[in-house]
Amino acid sequence: MSNIVNRRMTLQRYPDGMPRDDDFAVVEGEVPDIGEGDVLCRAIYLTVDPYIRVHLNPRLAKGYAPLLPIGGVIPGEAVLQVERSRFPGLKEGDFVAGFGGWQDFCALPGASLRKVDPTLGPLSAHLGALGMPGLTAYAGFTRLAEAEPGQTVFVSAALGGVGAVVGQLARERGCRTIGVSSSAEKCRYAVETLGYDLCLDRNQSDFADLVAKACPEKIDVNFENVGGDVFWAALHSMKDYGRMIMCGLVSDYNNDELPSGPDLAPTLIRYIALKRLVMKGLMVADFFNLYPEFQQVVGAMIRDGRFRHKEYIVEGIDNAGRAMIDMMEGRNFGKTVVRITDDPTL
Amino acid sequence: MSNIVNRRMTLQRYPDGMPRDDDFAVVEGEVPDIGEGDVLCRAIYLTVDPYIRVHLNPRLAKGYAPLLPIGGVIPGEAVLQVERSRFPGLKEGDFVAGFGGWQDFCALPGASLRKVDPTLGPLSAHLGALGMPGLTAYAGFTRLAEAEPGQTVFVSAALGGVGAVVGQLARERGCRTIGVSSSAEKCRYAVETLGYDLCLDRNQSDFADLVAKACPEKIDVNFENVGGDVFWAALHSMKDYGRMIMCGLVSDYNNDELPSGPDLAPTLIRYIALKRLVMKGLMVADFFNLYPEFQQVVGAMIRDGRFRHKEYIVEGIDNAGRAMIDMMEGRNFGKTVVRITDDPTL
Repeated sequence: MSNIVNRRMTLQRYPDGMPRDDDFAVVEGEVPDIGEGDVLCRAIYLTVDPYIRVHLNPRLAKGYAPLLPIGGVIPGEAVLQVERSRFPGLKEGDFVAGFGGWQDFCALPGASLRKVDPTLGPLSAHLGALGMPGLTAYAGFTRLAEAEPGQTVFVSAALGGVGAVVGQLARERGCRTIGVSSSAEKCRYAVETLGYDLCLDRNQSDFADLVAKACPEKIDVNFENVGGDVFWAALHSMKDYGRMIMCGLVSDYNNDELPSGPDLAPTLIRYIALKRLVMKGLMVADFFNLYPEFQQVVGAMIRDGRFRHKEYIVEGIDNAGRAMIDMMEGRNFGKTVVRITDDPTL
Repeated sequence: MSNIVNRRMTLQRYPDGMPRDDDFAVVEGEVPDIGEGDVLCRAIYLTVDPYIRVHLNPRLAKGYAPLLPIGGVIPGEAVLQVERSRFPGLKEGDFVAGFGGWQDFCALPGASLRKVDPTLGPLSAHLGALGMPGLTAYAGFTRLAEAEPGQTVFVSAALGGVGAVVGQLARERGCRTIGVSSSAEKCRYAVETLGYDLCLDRNQSDFADLVAKACPEKIDVNFENVGGDVFWAALHSMKDYGRMIMCGLVSDYNNDELPSGPDLAPTLIRYIALKRLVMKGLMVADFFNLYPEFQQVVGAMIRDGRFRHKEYIVEGIDNAGRAMIDMMEGRNFGKTVVRITDDPTL
């Protein structure tokens, strides 16, 4: 494959706050060789998820993932097609998902890939509702949240890759669902199409009051992906003994340094004690064994038309950095993915 | 009883940071009348606990308890003897515990009092190991902490009313116990007499390093009563999936305003997510139904000599304010109580 170029989106410097277009650059590289047990894959869809920003933040990467070195390929899951396999379980043409990063070709250990069943839904959905974000939602909701029918579930990024699945699982469970998004249009979509009982625009100046008014019976479960003002609004409206599932904290990911004071950690702890809240950390890697169960449940909801999956599809690897900036700034509308295949059938 | 004076320790002004002696003053009042269902009680021992400081802090009282008005009697539990009863279940001479505050005489609804069994241990212990602090420890340890034999339990105030009970319950459960106190002498006592495996002096300059070194296998359960640097040292050494029982935050109780930055709340949340910690709020009022079970368990440990109860007994109501200051500054040695009876047999 010596004539084929591997286009790779690389990091030019660590972003200073919100990423900028020239923090990223596409460079041309070679298609990698593969060793025994490896698989050469060609990317079809790349994911754009908030966690990627953590890999680019020297302060935050520690303890989470290796900090991406300057010049490195932006990491992240991708839906891939097998070009060549030296792994017994996979053959040319198979669809898989794996941590290929933002590049055309990658060589990965076959054992690190999960097979993608294209009959479950669109291929791109395996980076969202049927993929890792969906599993995050499913595991957090079914294994940690302890949500009962009739309880109120608060979802801080209602249309996001994780949030949209939490919201629809909670609705199916018979919960009252309150979403948060970043525009009136998205909030309307959350209610009319995703089936939230209510969705609040976090850019409204009286957002905390709106949350308090929307939750007269208080919040039983807060599924946290945002942090900052959205988190505090939810905290103030939590019901005694409520659960807070700490999944993500997008509002902190662009902070190169610790945010300025006052120090609200004691206040947070005080609320937890006063309201007897339970705050639980969620890392999806703990739940990879749930993939079959999760895909069966959400796959059935998709087939029945009870589940809607909103994607924000960006074309071409050159636009991947911009897609990430748009996502961090809330200009996306649904789960962001980058389509990099030329094959119109995929 | 018109000739008898009721000496009452009252609040003169809200303390500015650490309380001072003249924030408090004894005033003489009348012995109260009682209505139907009430009991007139004479105080024997008054408690001095960190939570009392919260009642005196306009910023913190909200959501916890009514803010004490200026001139009000300092609140808190007391061991009392019934002087006169208009409540069917109690008669003159009975020993009870109730929220009488820092005064000689109080009139309380009989239904709000719990009977004190003087055969279980010294009367003063019903404000500590056999009382509300002990119940706090018992409920948190047995109902929330999920501590298994061999696991490491970290107790941030090793000799305190709550901590001393947590440490000894954890030791009995077969846990490795690591205490924290405020002097080498107290730490020695914690190990030699209370049976902690180790106790660290939080005034050592390299305290966080000492915690890390003391917990090579990390902390499974942190029973938090202090907050601040002690909390952060524990957090850094928490094991994945560990439990943090949030009971008290003494280090914040003297803050009239929010502590200055940086804002560590996002860092706290990030640790909870990364380590998949479970942080649970504890309020003892949820567990008052456990008093009989708790007193049976700890009472048996006291009788068997397996439980040691260290008290710091201050004489006379005039010294109650000073006793509270000493406790907040760590000059006490054990659970602080104020003895205000003249009866040498009690």
